[in-house]
Amino acid sequence: MAGNSFGQLFKVTTFGESHGPALGAVVDGCPPGLELSEEDIQQALDRRKPGTNRYTTARREADQVEILSGVFEGKTTGTPIGLLIRNTDQRSQDYSDIKDSFRPGHADYTYQHKYGVRDYRGGGRSSARETAMRVAAGAIASKLLEQQGVRIIAGLTQMGNIKIEQVDWSTVRDNPLFCPDVDAVAPMQELIKQLLKDGDSVGARIRVEASGLPPGWGEPVFDRLDADLAKALMSINAAKAVSLGAGFDAVAQRGSEHRDEMTASGFCSNHAGGVLGGISSGQTVTADIAFKPTSSISLSGQTINRFGDEQAIVTKGRHDPCVGIRAVPIVEAMTALVLVDHWLRQRAQNADVKHSTPVITR
Amino acid sequence: MAGNSFGQLFKVTTFGESHGPALGAVVDGCPPGLELSEEDIQQALDRRKPGTNRYTTARREADQVEILSGVFEGKTTGTPIGLLIRNTDQRSQDYSDIKDSFRPGHADYTYQHKYGVRDYRGGGRSSARETAMRVAAGAIASKLLEQQGVRIIAGLTQMGNIKIEQVDWSTVRDNPLFCPDVDAVAPMQELIKQLLKDGDSVGARIRVEASGLPPGWGEPVFDRLDADLAKALMSINAAKAVSLGAGFDAVAQRGSEHRDEMTASGFCSNHAGGVLGGISSGQTVTADIAFKPTSSISLSGQTINRFGDEQAIVTKGRHDPCVGIRAVPIVEAMTALVLVDHWLRQRAQNADVKHSTPVITR
Amino acid sequence: MAGNSFGQLFKVTTFGESHGPALGAVVDGCPPGLELSEEDIQQALDRRKPGTNRYTTARREADQVEILSGVFEGKTTGTPIGLLIRNTDQRSQDYSDIKDSFRPGHADYTYQHKYGVRDYRGGGRSSARETAMRVAAGAIASKLLEQQGVRIIAGLTQMGNIKIEQVDWSTVRDNPLFCPDVDAVAPMQELIKQLLKDGDSVGARIRVEASGLPPGWGEPVFDRLDADLAKALMSINAAKAVSLGAGFDAVAQRGSEHRDEMTASGFCSNHAGGVLGGISSGQTVTADIAFKPTSSISLSGQTINRFGDEQAIVTKGRHDPCVGIRAVPIVEAMTALVLVDHWLRQRAQNADVKHSTPVITR
Amino acid sequence: MAGNSFGQLFKVTTFGESHGPALGAVVDGCPPGLELSEEDIQQALDRRKPGTNRYTTARREADQVEILSGVFEGKTTGTPIGLLIRNTDQRSQDYSDIKDSFRPGHADYTYQHKYGVRDYRGGGRSSARETAMRVAAGAIASKLLEQQGVRIIAGLTQMGNIKIEQVDWSTVRDNPLFCPDVDAVAPMQELIKQLLKDGDSVGARIRVEASGLPPGWGEPVFDRLDADLAKALMSINAAKAVSLGAGFDAVAQRGSEHRDEMTASGFCSNHAGGVLGGISSGQTVTADIAFKPTSSISLSGQTINRFGDEQAIVTKGRHDPCVGIRAVPIVEAMTALVLVDHWLRQRAQNADVKHSTPVITR
Repeated sequence: MAGNSFGQLFKVTTFGESHGPALGAVVDGCPPGLELSEEDIQQALDRRKPGTNRYTTARREADQVEILSGVFEGKTTGTPIGLLIRNTDQRSQDYSDIKDSFRPGHADYTYQHKYGVRDYRGGGRSSARETAMRVAAGAIASKLLEQQGVRIIAGLTQMGNIKIEQVDWSTVRDNPLFCPDVDAVAPMQELIKQLLKDGDSVGARIRVEASGLPPGWGEPVFDRLDADLAKALMSINAAKAVSLGAGFDAVAQRGSEHRDEMTASGFCSNHAGGVLGGISSGQTVTADIAFKPTSSISLSGQTINRFGDEQAIVTKGRHDPCVGIRAVPIVEAMTALVLVDHWLRQRAQNADVKHSTPVITR
Repeated sequence: MAGNSFGQLFKVTTFGESHGPALGAVVDGCPPGLELSEEDIQQALDRRKPGTNRYTTARREADQVEILSGVFEGKTTGTPIGLLIRNTDQRSQDYSDIKDSFRPGHADYTYQHKYGVRDYRGGGRSSARETAMRVAAGAIASKLLEQQGVRIIAGLTQMGNIKIEQVDWSTVRDNPLFCPDVDAVAPMQELIKQLLKDGDSVGARIRVEASGLPPGWGEPVFDRLDADLAKALMSINAAKAVSLGAGFDAVAQRGSEHRDEMTASGFCSNHAGGVLGGISSGQTVTADIAFKPTSSISLSGQTINRFGDEQAIVTKGRHDPCVGIRAVPIVEAMTALVLVDHWLRQRAQNADVKHSTPVITR
Repeated sequence: MAGNSFGQLFKVTTFGESHGPALGAVVDGCPPGLELSEEDIQQALDRRKPGTNRYTTARREADQVEILSGVFEGKTTGTPIGLLIRNTDQRSQDYSDIKDSFRPGHADYTYQHKYGVRDYRGGGRSSARETAMRVAAGAIASKLLEQQGVRIIAGLTQMGNIKIEQVDWSTVRDNPLFCPDVDAVAPMQELIKQLLKDGDSVGARIRVEASGLPPGWGEPVFDRLDADLAKALMSINAAKAVSLGAGFDAVAQRGSEHRDEMTASGFCSNHAGGVLGGISSGQTVTADIAFKPTSSISLSGQTINRFGDEQAIVTKGRHDPCVGIRAVPIVEAMTALVLVDHWLRQRAQNADVKHSTPVITR
Repeated sequence: MAGNSFGQLFKVTTFGESHGPALGAVVDGCPPGLELSEEDIQQALDRRKPGTNRYTTARREADQVEILSGVFEGKTTGTPIGLLIRNTDQRSQDYSDIKDSFRPGHADYTYQHKYGVRDYRGGGRSSARETAMRVAAGAIASKLLEQQGVRIIAGLTQMGNIKIEQVDWSTVRDNPLFCPDVDAVAPMQELIKQLLKDGDSVGARIRVEASGLPPGWGEPVFDRLDADLAKALMSINAAKAVSLGAGFDAVAQRGSEHRDEMTASGFCSNHAGGVLGGISSGQTVTADIAFKPTSSISLSGQTINRFGDEQAIVTKGRHDPCVGIRAVPIVEAMTALVLVDHWLRQRAQNADVKHSTPVITR
């Protein structure tokens, strides 16, 4: 059934295949009066754009977004915002090698079984190209959140076995790897070169942080802020794990260590990752996401075709040795979509809540 | 806004506070004709029930479920199934110590800020007591899935620093810790004794596996099977992380290692955890979940009250040194709710899909 | 699939069969801080209760509602409100006559075909008894709306061929027929006596008005205020038509007559029924609903049984000669559910809207 | 909040303003394998297109639809179908007369109050131009329904005071008024001429029938087939009333007359309009809808502007003297959207239902 929408009050619906005529999105529920231009969205798209640097896929797409509705005289009107990106670089490639074959690690086999038919060109709907529209919608969400004092930032904290030492957000936007540790950039670039030489790929770990949220966002018991974040982040192509705060490290912690004690000047630690009982605590929301290594590599792999015959396959085309790099702006976008939705939900039900409990400093 | 429902086609809505008159659930969308008795549900509830063994909380609740609707002459009718459990062991306890204070690691502070008011007795709605209804609803989902050949099993794979060596599902239901490694049970029990002595607690890691799914369940691009699992599992009290298949280990893997190659007799590995492109592949779905250590411990902690005053707090009452143990049946239940929903969704849209692609042996 | 919930932000889910153990509802999304007691709900239920007067069914149900959750120390907490009514007057009646037969005008035949099984006792889920929970939930919605200055009132404006001359709301709650024209009460009572003698029934027309709404409620283009009202009112048992404002009379009107012109002191007429473009205009929202005559009558009718055999059937039991009478409080409840949902929706998206356009006096 | 989507399993989301760059829709949930071309959709659009005949608005729009996704090699793939229509005839008209003024009978005043801002050009989002996308989506739904043996047809049964005598569907597609009574066409055309001369407009009544449904579609208790139809039809611009079967005439009927008795060869009548208890009975579903007279007329009307000043207004531009005519294909489209959604919902939950109850001949 319909599974291409995200959000309840700020609802994003995307459509489009990798090699079809266009990608698009509808953002329904954006409050009126927000100043919004195509340039606002384009900036976010450009960060994700393939071909931006030599470390990501060589496919060159203009990714020029067009706003089709919902904005009038430079401001949102409260009506749905239609967004469109034409696909321009669909090379008349020969897809006969994957038309009937299932590339290992890809969704070819599962799409075939689910639908009985699939647009095999470049992975069709299962391509990460779809995430361009998430970034576009996320740019609108981010603008709204900024007005609420919320800031979202993500970065690459691990590539293969290279883990960064320390997160320093100040430099994360200055390097092509979105890495928040300048010392790790050079070794990571070395690794990429090696992977390109090997025809192989590697996984990545991304950290995202959202600061400036007031306490109170998130809807127990199912639509918790952390649960919705988990879904949003796990819905990104190639994601294999999501954790909040201490994450899997919490398993070995004692309760006396993990519980974040409180003083009048703030929480003493943030093992929770900014969410308690599914509701934001006002601390920085912190999540980590694991991305698997790119499945499209030039090393031959064993597979079957759609008639059940075994065969070897090499994925041709232009691909990233580490998809995780380009996932950084997508992680930010999905985080923004979750937060803006919960901001509106909180406002709907609890707009009148007034009480004297002080908000402690983070 | 409304956040107490889970699922699209098999929709579960729960209500009830820890120390209110009752807990309840409505299961809307269960297909008709399923044989269902209170005993079916009771069996599942008994596995989760507090007071079942000395390693979990001493609160003694009969947790006797009553089916209020939707079942006639022993079979479901297709109309909503109302479920009720009366709370019986709400001791007339003195809650004055937490009425105005925020226990660290609990949702007291966030509920106060979200709603401006809270039922502080035993944590109110934020108590894990709510999960009894998830287990009840999950029992119905499990019965439906069994008829489809799907089997779900979960177990405790790590407690504190004690990791199990090998998963052996054959014994998991025979020990009070739901541990799938008999050799780990004794050391885990030792750890619990030590924690009880220390007045402290520890985290846990749980693995869940679902086998027998056909390829094709899951709805890209947002309502992916893995994304919905991530949400479902992260929505369980105390969950801090969710991973599928290789999870965070995928970060350090090479693409040539991670991608699960295929032969005519099946997949060569299962790093994906049974999901490709958000759709089940027919392999066993495998997920791991991290649970934080119980926040309710008898060691004094620093906190503030609702007027901003600093104070020390000791959580009284009956609590688990490791909440993760009782989370095992809840993990199974939430997994079942996700799968049954996606089974119905797949059936709605793709009931007519017929194709000749062979399903490979797992 | 799941079809037993109503509303997006103020979501009501009902369950229960006519002759099962209980009826229930969950109200999810009620803002916190509302003073709410069982008595508040009971008053609304008592207006709908069967057996209240000799003109409605003789089934005697206490219809005693119990609040199971979501209210603490007399106020709502923002968590879901569980409501329960035990069925007490399920006479050990012999239902063998309808077990395998399809009463004409009833849902017996359609339930059998939809589900393959049905709880035939008293109509099971298709019984109007389910509407008790709508009235209960509507009572909560009405309390919230009153705080917003919105008042909802409904009355019987036609029974069979007896149409009232003039709507006078001041007396509508003083007569057992909820008729807003005192002069029509006596002839209507005569008609009922005649129908009881004849063993027949008759239809009814109800008008509902909601005043005090600000302009701005309703979400184009599908979730318009009038569209949601149409669904809500048509979802009441026995409803056959819904109209807003001029309704079917608008067909014969000229545009110059229908369009409600405006002056600085207000609209010159209200043919629109208080909704323009799917959004409330600030005028009184006015709707009319047609209810069919009760299908359960003591005159023999022709039907078939579940094996396809033809037979004559007489519906035994205790029934209303005009179901429309008891529909009055249900119409008010459903109207309240629509309005409270749109109030919250408007607040979510447009809480910040500030503009200088004056609101004209109705 | 988000209100621009319709349907649960076959979900349609529309966007676009009357004078913006484009209109669009996303159809999410269409089963795979359906043969679909732009021509299929274009045919439906051409029936609704403005400027098709002299009786409807002179605005000339190519209304050329483009399929952007979800179709591959001539068949749907199960992924979302993106549809786009560029606006081409947005005359550089002077809208200064309505920029700050509220046309009576239009949504100008309510949009201004809801959003604080509005795209006033041609009514912006509130324009009936949006319904082009409903017709486009409805064309896909109709193709699916035809494969299930369901056929939908609508026609103009009343214009102003001219009521048709007899419905004869055989000729309805042969006349420009979509009138199912050839004898009424000439007088209706006379009326239109008179209205054009007068600068006035008139309302319309449309009947829609859906035949070929099996018994079992519709989800009690809220998402009844008739309730969802009422919402769908009332959500069309200018709709003021919706009725099923006997509709308001049911008020004056006796139960012995209204209830549709059954014999082995079928129902003896169809006062119910094909729906019992919210579920299709297998009889023809029959609904009537009232449309108000066009508000855009050239007769001067009294209104206020956005500063509260009184003024007279004449609506310039190209408009229909009877919007009801062009509503015919929209009514068919919305009916199709409801039915296809309920077909999928029925299949999800009740695909396995097997029983021996015979389906009676209509």
